[in-house]
Formats: sequence, C-alpha cells, structure tokens
Amino acid sequence: MIRAAVAGASGYAGGEILRLLLAHPQFEVGAVTAGSNAGERLGAIHPHLTPLADRVLDDTSVEVLAGHEVVFLALPHGHSAALAAQLPEEVVVIDCGADFRLESAQAWTTFYDTPHAGAWPYGLPELPLAGGARQRERLAGARRIAVPGCYPTGISLALAPGLAAGTIEPSDVVVVAASGTSGAGKALKPHLLGSEVMGSMSPYGVGGGHRHTPEIEQNLGRAAGLPVTVSFTPTLAPMPRGILATCTARLTEGADPASVRNVWEQAYAAEPFVHLLPEGVWPRTADVIGSNNVHLQVAVDAHAGRVVVVSAIDNLTKGTGGAAIQCANLALGLDEALGLPLTGVAP
Amino acid sequence: MIRAAVAGASGYAGGEILRLLLAHPQFEVGAVTAGSNAGERLGAIHPHLTPLADRVLDDTSVEVLAGHEVVFLALPHGHSAALAAQLPEEVVVIDCGADFRLESAQAWTTFYDTPHAGAWPYGLPELPLAGGARQRERLAGARRIAVPGCYPTGISLALAPGLAAGTIEPSDVVVVAASGTSGAGKALKPHLLGSEVMGSMSPYGVGGGHRHTPEIEQNLGRAAGLPVTVSFTPTLAPMPRGILATCTARLTEGADPASVRNVWEQAYAAEPFVHLLPEGVWPRTADVIGSNNVHLQVAVDAHAGRVVVVSAIDNLTKGTGGAAIQCANLALGLDEALGLPLTGVAP
Amino acid sequence: MIRAAVAGASGYAGGEILRLLLAHPQFEVGAVTAGSNAGERLGAIHPHLTPLADRVLDDTSVEVLAGHEVVFLALPHGHSAALAAQLPEEVVVIDCGADFRLESAQAWTTFYDTPHAGAWPYGLPELPLAGGARQRERLAGARRIAVPGCYPTGISLALAPGLAAGTIEPSDVVVVAASGTSGAGKALKPHLLGSEVMGSMSPYGVGGGHRHTPEIEQNLGRAAGLPVTVSFTPTLAPMPRGILATCTARLTEGADPASVRNVWEQAYAAEPFVHLLPEGVWPRTADVIGSNNVHLQVAVDAHAGRVVVVSAIDNLTKGTGGAAIQCANLALGLDEALGLPLTGVAP
Amino acid sequence: MIRAAVAGASGYAGGEILRLLLAHPQFEVGAVTAGSNAGERLGAIHPHLTPLADRVLDDTSVEVLAGHEVVFLALPHGHSAALAAQLPEEVVVIDCGADFRLESAQAWTTFYDTPHAGAWPYGLPELPLAGGARQRERLAGARRIAVPGCYPTGISLALAPGLAAGTIEPSDVVVVAASGTSGAGKALKPHLLGSEVMGSMSPYGVGGGHRHTPEIEQNLGRAAGLPVTVSFTPTLAPMPRGILATCTARLTEGADPASVRNVWEQAYAAEPFVHLLPEGVWPRTADVIGSNNVHLQVAVDAHAGRVVVVSAIDNLTKGTGGAAIQCANLALGLDEALGLPLTGVAP
Repeated sequence: MIRAAVAGASGYAGGEILRLLLAHPQFEVGAVTAGSNAGERLGAIHPHLTPLADRVLDDTSVEVLAGHEVVFLALPHGHSAALAAQLPEEVVVIDCGADFRLESAQAWTTFYDTPHAGAWPYGLPELPLAGGARQRERLAGARRIAVPGCYPTGISLALAPGLAAGTIEPSDVVVVAASGTSGAGKALKPHLLGSEVMGSMSPYGVGGGHRHTPEIEQNLGRAAGLPVTVSFTPTLAPMPRGILATCTARLTEGADPASVRNVWEQAYAAEPFVHLLPEGVWPRTADVIGSNNVHLQVAVDAHAGRVVVVSAIDNLTKGTGGAAIQCANLALGLDEALGLPLTGVAP
Repeated sequence: MIRAAVAGASGYAGGEILRLLLAHPQFEVGAVTAGSNAGERLGAIHPHLTPLADRVLDDTSVEVLAGHEVVFLALPHGHSAALAAQLPEEVVVIDCGADFRLESAQAWTTFYDTPHAGAWPYGLPELPLAGGARQRERLAGARRIAVPGCYPTGISLALAPGLAAGTIEPSDVVVVAASGTSGAGKALKPHLLGSEVMGSMSPYGVGGGHRHTPEIEQNLGRAAGLPVTVSFTPTLAPMPRGILATCTARLTEGADPASVRNVWEQAYAAEPFVHLLPEGVWPRTADVIGSNNVHLQVAVDAHAGRVVVVSAIDNLTKGTGGAAIQCANLALGLDEALGLPLTGVAP
Repeated sequence: MIRAAVAGASGYAGGEILRLLLAHPQFEVGAVTAGSNAGERLGAIHPHLTPLADRVLDDTSVEVLAGHEVVFLALPHGHSAALAAQLPEEVVVIDCGADFRLESAQAWTTFYDTPHAGAWPYGLPELPLAGGARQRERLAGARRIAVPGCYPTGISLALAPGLAAGTIEPSDVVVVAASGTSGAGKALKPHLLGSEVMGSMSPYGVGGGHRHTPEIEQNLGRAAGLPVTVSFTPTLAPMPRGILATCTARLTEGADPASVRNVWEQAYAAEPFVHLLPEGVWPRTADVIGSNNVHLQVAVDAHAGRVVVVSAIDNLTKGTGGAAIQCANLALGLDEALGLPLTGVAP
Repeated sequence: MIRAAVAGASGYAGGEILRLLLAHPQFEVGAVTAGSNAGERLGAIHPHLTPLADRVLDDTSVEVLAGHEVVFLALPHGHSAALAAQLPEEVVVIDCGADFRLESAQAWTTFYDTPHAGAWPYGLPELPLAGGARQRERLAGARRIAVPGCYPTGISLALAPGLAAGTIEPSDVVVVAASGTSGAGKALKPHLLGSEVMGSMSPYGVGGGHRHTPEIEQNLGRAAGLPVTVSFTPTLAPMPRGILATCTARLTEGADPASVRNVWEQAYAAEPFVHLLPEGVWPRTADVIGSNNVHLQVAVDAHAGRVVVVSAIDNLTKGTGGAAIQCANLALGLDEALGLPLTGVAP
C-alpha cells in the first residue's frame, strides 16, 4: 500500500480526497492535517467519513507530512509553495490549490495577492492540445502536479476539442456556469448560509472578475494553439455539489455543422471519465455526483451560428479530489482510473 | 369592485393570478374555471389560497366567463384563440398563453403545432422601443393583451436598453438562463419529479430549440430597431420559482464603457418594478420571489469586449401572473402598479 | 398612519416585520435600527425589501426609537428588557425575543444566562384557555406584549383545544417538529451553511434541551388547567422557512374518537388564521409560506391510542413577524387581521 | 464472479442495487429487466450508471432471470411471489418488495390488496432479538430473503436494543420520521413534483395508516419478546435521499438513566454498519448518503421520562439496495460487508 498524506483535510476538498482514498485499492490514509482544526476528531469535521471518525487532525507541518509517498495539498490559495519547497523531491506532491496552475505571472498577480510561485505540470490529463497530443503525456512520472480548478475542468474539457480541431472560433467564447455551494468552501459568509442559498440563483465575479478566467484561457489556448478570449460568468446554484457549464463559441466559417459532433466523439472516445452523451440527451449534474465523470453534450445552433457545449461534473470529485487521485495514479505509474468512481449517486 | 374571471385556474399561472387578485384592492375573484380539474375544490388544487379553499372549479366555457369585466386566460398554448373569439369585445382579455405573442406566423409555426392566431398588444409595458417610446403606450385602453413569456420578460428587460441606445451589438447576443421548476408547469413528467430535480442543474431546448427564442428576438428587435439574433440556453434549477438570466452582448465599437451603466439607469429610473441595483451588487432570485420586481445589474467585461447584464424575476409573478395584473391595470386605466407586491418573500 | 419602529431590523425577524409593515394599510415604517449593521443600507441586508433599499440602519437606542407609537423589538435574547424599560409607558412595545415570555423565573434561568425580566401578556391570541376564555382577551389595549416563539406557536395551537376540552391527556405529550433554517437566524455557524443543510435532516436540542420546551408547557398548561409534560424534539429541515409540528398525545380514556375532530373544529371555527383542513388533508409548510396562517389536521390513531395533530406555519410570519403585527393590531384596537396575508406564496 | 440479475431495474431501488453491484468485487451484473421500460437503454433511465449506459432493459421473465446465482427483485408490491415461485430453489432470491416481510397474514391484508404470500427470513442482520440472538443467524445460507422496508430499518435499529434490554417500555412508542422523496419511488404523482416538494415538509399516512407500521411492530416485538405498539408518523422532506427517524419510548420504571447509553453501545459495538455517535453528536442524513451506514444517537429526557433515539440512514442504500447486497453476501457465505460503502458522499 502507498501511504498518502492529506494536508488541509478539514475543508471540502480535503474531505473528498479522504473519501476517495478510503475506496482506493492501493492507497492508505497516512497523516491527516489541518490548520485551526488541528486537534479535533475527524468525525467532528467530516462525519460522513465514518471509518476515519476517531482519527485526530495533526498540525500541518513538514515533519508530519514527510515520510509519505504522496502528499495531497488542499490548502488555502498561497499556502502551498512554502510547504512544497520543503518536501523531498521524490515525494509526489499533488496541489489542489491555485498556486502552481498559471504559467503567466501577470495573470497570477492580477487575481491573487501572493507572489507567483511558478507552474507545475497541469493535472488535466484528458485535455486535447494543439498538434494532437494530450496533457496526460506531461504527467506520467511527474513528482509535482497542479490540480485544475473546478470550473476550468468542466469548461476546458467542453470546449477544447472544438478549438483543437478548428471547429469553433477562439475569439468570442461565452461561458455561463452554475456551481453548487461546496465550490465556495466552508468559509462562514452570510451569503453562503442555507437560508440565503436555498431557492436562489445568483451570479458573482461577473465581468471578467473570476480567478478562474485566466486558467480557462490558458487551457483553451493550449488546445487552440493561439490565444483564446473568454467571457465567463459563474453563478451559485441551490445545491451542495455539481457544476453545469454552458459553453458557446462561434462555429468557424466554412465548418460543416453536420460533422461537429464527430469532433467531440473522437476526442473522448478513449477517455474513461469523459462521456459524450447520446445525441439529444443533455447532462444533469445529479448524474455525476460522487463520480469522477464528465457528462457532455454538443449542439449546433445554426440560427445563431454558435456551437453550444454543456458539461456536468462534480466540483469536488472530477473538479478537485478525483482529479487529484487521478494525477497521483499517473505520477505513480498506476492505472489512471484506479479506485475512482465511475457511477454517480443518484437520485 | 371589478369582477375578474380566471380560466385555467388549476395550473401554476392561474394560481398565481388568484393569489394576486386576492391582494388587489379593485378586483374581486369571479368565475374560476378549469379543464380536467373542474368540479374540484380549489383548496385541493391550490391549498395556499386559503380564502378560496371552498370555491369549486367550474368548467371553462364562454357562458361561465361572460359577464366579467376582465378575463384572465391561463390555458395551455393553442387554447386561447377559440375562447377569446367568443368573448364580448368590451371585455378585457389578458392571455397568459403564447397564442398572441408572436407577430410572425412563420416563427409561430416553427415552434407550435396549432395555426397562428395573430398578435395582440404585447404586455411588457417597460420595454424600451427604438425611437424612444415604451411598449406601455400600446397597452392603455387595450381590450386584448398578450402577456409575455417568463424568460422573454427577464431577458428582454435586461438587454433592451443597450440595444435601444446602440451600446451593444444586435448580432451576437448570448443568453443562458436558469429557471425554477414551476416554469415547466404541473405536467407529470419524470424529469420534473422532486427526486430528479433537487440537487441538479440541467439544460434543455439547447441549440435554438426553445419556443421563447423568437419572442425574445421580436422584443429585442423592437428595441434595437433592427433584427437581433440570440443564442439562448435555458436551464432547469433546483428551486420552485425564479429566473436568473445572464445576458451578454458585444460592446459596440466606440462605445464608452464608463457610460454603459448610465444607459440602464436612465432606462429604468422611472419604472416602479425594474430596479438597477447599486454598482457591484448582483441580483439573486430569492430577493424577488412573490414580487413583481425585476432586479438588474450590468457590467462591462473589458477583457472580453462584452457587456454582461443579469436579471432576476419571479417567473410566476413578473414572469406571468403579476404581468397579467399589471396589464389589466393598464387596460382599465388604473394605476399600473396597483395591488402588485413590491417586496419579495425572503429568505 | 401609525409610525412603527423596528429595533434589530437586520435579522430575519426584523426583516419579516418590515415586509409586513410595508403591506399594512395603517402602519408606516419609522426608525429602523441595528447593532453591528448600523450604518449600512437596508438594501445590502434585506435586498428583498426593495422599497426600503436606500434606508440606512440607525443605531439601536432609546432616542431613535422614542416618538413612535409602536416599537417592535427583534433583538437577541436578553437585550429587550433594558431597552423596553426606557421606552415611555404609552408606547406599544412588541417584543419578539424570549425575554418576557416565561412566567417562571426558574424555567427562564434553566435555559438563559441573563436574569429573568418578568412576563408580559403573551401574544398568542388564538390560544384556548382552560375555562373557555382565549388569550386574546388579555391583549386588547396592552402596551407591552411578548410575541411567542415559533415552535411554541405551531405546537400550542395544535394541542391546546384537546387539552382544554379534556380530549387528550396532559401527561405524555410527544412532539417532533421540523423547522426551516431561518428559525436558527443569521448566525454564521458551520452547520447552517447551505452546503451542510441542503439535502439533510438533523435533530438538535434533543432530550429536553430546547429553550422552547418550558414555553410550550406553559401554554399547554394554561389550556389544560393543569401541568403538562412534553417531550419535544426539534429538527432542522432543508428549507428556508416553515415549521411542521407533529404532535401526539394519548386519547383520554373514555373519550369518543368520533368526536375528536369536532373539538378542533369548534375551537377554531371563528379564527381568521387557524384553519382545520378538510378531513384527510394534511398540512404542507409550502402552503403557508409568507402568510399568517396555521394549517392544521387531526387524526385518531386507534391502534396506538393516540391523537395526532399536525400543524404547519411559516416560522417568520405567524411564527414571528406576523404574530407581532397581529399583537400590535390588538393593542391598538385595530382589526386583529388587518394587513396580514391570508394566502401563502406557493409553489 | 457471481452473476446477479436485477428485476425491476428501472425504479430507484433497482438503480441503487445496480450502483452497488458495480462497486462489488464479487458480483457481476447479469440480466437487467423492467416492465414498461423494457427495451430502453439503461442510460435513459439511470444516467448516473455510466458504465451500464448502453445496456438495454429486458422484459422481466423467469427465462431471463434463470441462470443467475442471485436474483434481486425490486418489483412493485405484490409482484414478487409469482416470479419467485418459478425460480429454482438453489437460486438466491433477495426481495426488496414487501411481499414476504410480514408473518401475520392479518397485518398484510390490512394494508395490501393482494393475498398474503408468506414470510421469508427477514433481512435485517443487526436486529437484536429477545434472548440475545441476532437476526443475522437466520440469514446465513438462506436462499430466500425479504429485505426490510426503509422506515422499519432505521426505526427498528434505533429502538430494538432498548426493548431487548428492557430499558424502554413497549407500550407507548412514538416515532416521527422524515424521508427523502426517493422513498416514494418514481410514480408520477402531483405531490411528488419538484415544484411541490422543494421547500416543503408534509406528513402522510398519519394515524396508523402507513404500511410500515406492522413491520416495525413485528421487528420491535421480536426484540422485546412481547407485543409492541407504535404510533408512527412519516413525513416527506425536501431532499432526494435519507431518513431521519426520531424515536421515543418511556424509560422503564427503575431503569438507570446513566446506563442507557451503554445498552446501545454494547448492542452495536461489533456491527460494521451501525454507529452510535459520540455523546452529544446527533445524526444528519447527509452524512450517510450513498453509504450502508446507520448513524445513531440516544438521550434520556429525564423531564419527560422518555428515551429519545434518532437514527439516520440512506433510504436507498441501507434502506433498500445496500441491505439487499448485505443479505446476498450473507446468503452466499461472503463477508457480510463486502463491497458495501462505509463512507457517505457529503456535503
């Protein structure tokens, strides 16, 4: 068994990694650490993780984390770099924060107030790249991997095939996505109270203000082989988990509408987690909850001259914890899909 | 008191009209009719309408409806024309169905399987029209009014000011909207079961397939004074009421981003129901539930070159029943806002 | 118009009082005060109260509140006494806190850590009292009234008729109630986050630990004319508003099961807000949301020898703000039901 | 691998069995059959079961089911007997319907309109029986097992230890339980629409009218060794999955309140799925969703003289499909917990 530590285990991302580790045939749960929650029973923080209920959270420190083959970091943004720098090079470090996702220091400093820490191999294995390669190839054997943000995962996988194939134009991409509240974490903010959230939809970070925009554009730019501009509006939906991303882009002039579906079909035919649904069937977030799946559908709106792609993921599984395990599998040379749920929990 | 009849009172739209009539100082509830539910107690159909619990639903017929000063039709699409034709001309008939909304017979026949019945004055009083007028002017004293669809209400009011002022371009409008489930009515369909809906977001009618697209384009075309093309994707959200519409369009070349907000401010400064929120505050559907309000916000995404407008309405109030009362007020020469709730029920 | 001030207007109770005042034909909104939120726009706190959006919250102080004919206190428990003592005697003070609800100082000190402030006339007008009177009689013309807690309202009205009539036994009452999350207020506690609440039911204050137990027993004791013991378990339900109280008590030996329904029918036949539903129809919280109604049903479980009464109320309306207005109406000699909504907002 | 067939796979119970079979290391999914949905893709019925999306539902028939080592029946009540009678004796048949749960023909005919089919070994392994045995002992090697109803599972496990130990009295048990909507199945009934369910709590089958009452009393009677009478009120909660059962009974005269907790602790110390939470921590349904766990807590209400036990289960997992797998494991001599999830999916 491979011993895995989870730093920042008291948050939703950390809890999801633990849930998935418990079901994984090759990993065993090692150190489980937290900041202000250190010293508490895990059962008091994540009562759904019944088998770990009596474990006590350690302080997050290099000493506690050292000695594991894999360390998952699920820390607040800006906290990973210092810790990662002190972990031995041979340890596989999988960072669920934003710290190492962006190559552009300028993009980083626009949205974050800590110094740019650099970029690690980006953990979205299925991402088609311009020229025909996949992001996966950059992850095998890596010792440091940056797990994508939840929105960028659903959105990039939705649009990348069309950009890589030149089916859609890179200059006018519009995305509106709805996320469950766990995407906002456990912060005690009034607008995240159940009383405020239930029965309500609301947007936030409108007008280019969301931190995930440069990450989405970076991914789509790698797929297109040229710069991509995205108008991205995230919204908060009255559900605990799930992201539904509605992504539209102009159909490239001269592109054959009838062959659009083929582009996505071919892009994901061999992928274990990305599923283009049968024609006419649209994704529902409920169907992917708890799984590492991406459900996708694509249609051409001939009237508006746009391609519409909708993806559904679980923001905590494929959007965070599942991707982290998938990256660790790749880094360690295991089957990429090992131990990851392929079925959702519905209804 | 003005006697008002409601035909099709067993559906959600009919129930909402009754709720608002009960609170209106000038209307009294006359005949209340239904199709297959005729003969049942209203309390068995709409238990929230406590004061009407013991009323029994009549059969929908000209005989029952005649003799009222106002008749509200809340019938399935395609059923209003035959009935309306038999009602005396002097009766104010307010149709909540789609039958008389579209001027273009071609647009109608693309989406509906009944013959095109024609077009009545369109009941969206606040709609700014090209040239400076308002749709309101066409409604004073009208005896027949077509109440807008719920999506077109939220979307048209969000975008029309910018199109009327030339601030945004008419050629590439992209709208993604989320609706509560009451927008889909009371039809017994598996995907509308609570077990399926709760915790889930899903799109439908994607790729130009939604019936409301031509109505939205008709409204926006009237505002712009030239044809408008819209990519519209509706989604179903896990909440009973409310529509959040995220509407984006390209900022017109040469338009001053700094003056964009002014356009919407001026457009709605005098409107009792349409509220541009303070800068930086975004609408939430919860805040307008049960009210006839529209909450709006606008922002310029300089990076993407787009204006983003988000509106929130209650699909059953401003989106249907409230608009119907508002139209009746106008037709009868009453204060347009009379009896209509200006506060939402939250949290 | 009667000027009414609301102290503690930033909480859910205060917001609800304001919502109802806006719809009341005789009250106008005077001072609106808060503690830590003083200085903020009301629109930032209660965006659903659109007509009051630009009002700024004052500091809660005697100076600001003085000069109103009615002052509603919606303060944290323990804060009303000091303030009320400084308000002129002729001002009608309606307290939504717990401070003046309990006659027994011992009961108070078991559950609260401030000194017992005494007891004011208890604002549950419909409560049947032993001997045939109603609580209403004690409220006409009162200058100080204590508004009941939300659970005690739904539970006391459900059980009191049977106790007053001797139909059910006072010694073994068992109540399990489910409340929407607004009943827990706006406190920023982890278990009240939307992510935690949605899709989940959980109990709290089990085993006699809930503060509302002595208040329920006080009310039921007044109805029965002798001490009543209640086992009360409150649960938190995934909805923002509403209380469903399932109340059971042993059928008194010798009581005629066939006449049980009559007892409740007679008790509430003349009440404007308490509605015994037709036989076999059970209350749903959705049907009373936003209204001042109580929906009730009663059945005899012959097998278990128990009477089961279920009531549904909106915890913020009849459970708090609506009751406060109803009490003010009574104190001022207005029609008790004036300005109070008799229809729910559903679906 | 052991081939397992699922009859009635289109319902929620059938879907859950399939979900769990996919994760089980010893079972493989054989025939998957339905009634009116036969011929459809499983992906159209249960889109969350991604790996089975392209399987087509067969007609439910003996021919199709024969040749499997295990057959799970998830049929409407009354349909299992005829089918089971035709399956070879050596086939393990696990019935999720009510048909074979009740020993008393009289109890059966009070609640069901088909003839009493008899009783099979009852599949609640953890149930403590009077005299010290467990129900488990009656299941090892059985070829026919009746899976308990969802309510009886949560309620029986909550109360049985106290009855078996004589800590609580059998004569006055009161239970109020809240269930997610999947417990009502996929029937297209108006009150199960999302619009009706969201934001609402409501009771049903009040006054002894619920079919699960005799099953609960049968189980508790076996634990107590004498007849138990239960007042049971089920309520519908706005969530797709989960049951929270609040169960109370009189503390036996002379019983020591301080030792009450010990009784439950000892009863379940060795059980893999039943977890008595740490003192003062109460169950939440969210924590057990998707798992086969039962979370329990017990408290003494000294004031009311009652013991209160609250249990949380997932009605589809431990309440149906998980129990079915657990029974199959036992029947086949596998580890009882094999392949069953011990962690919930939360938040």
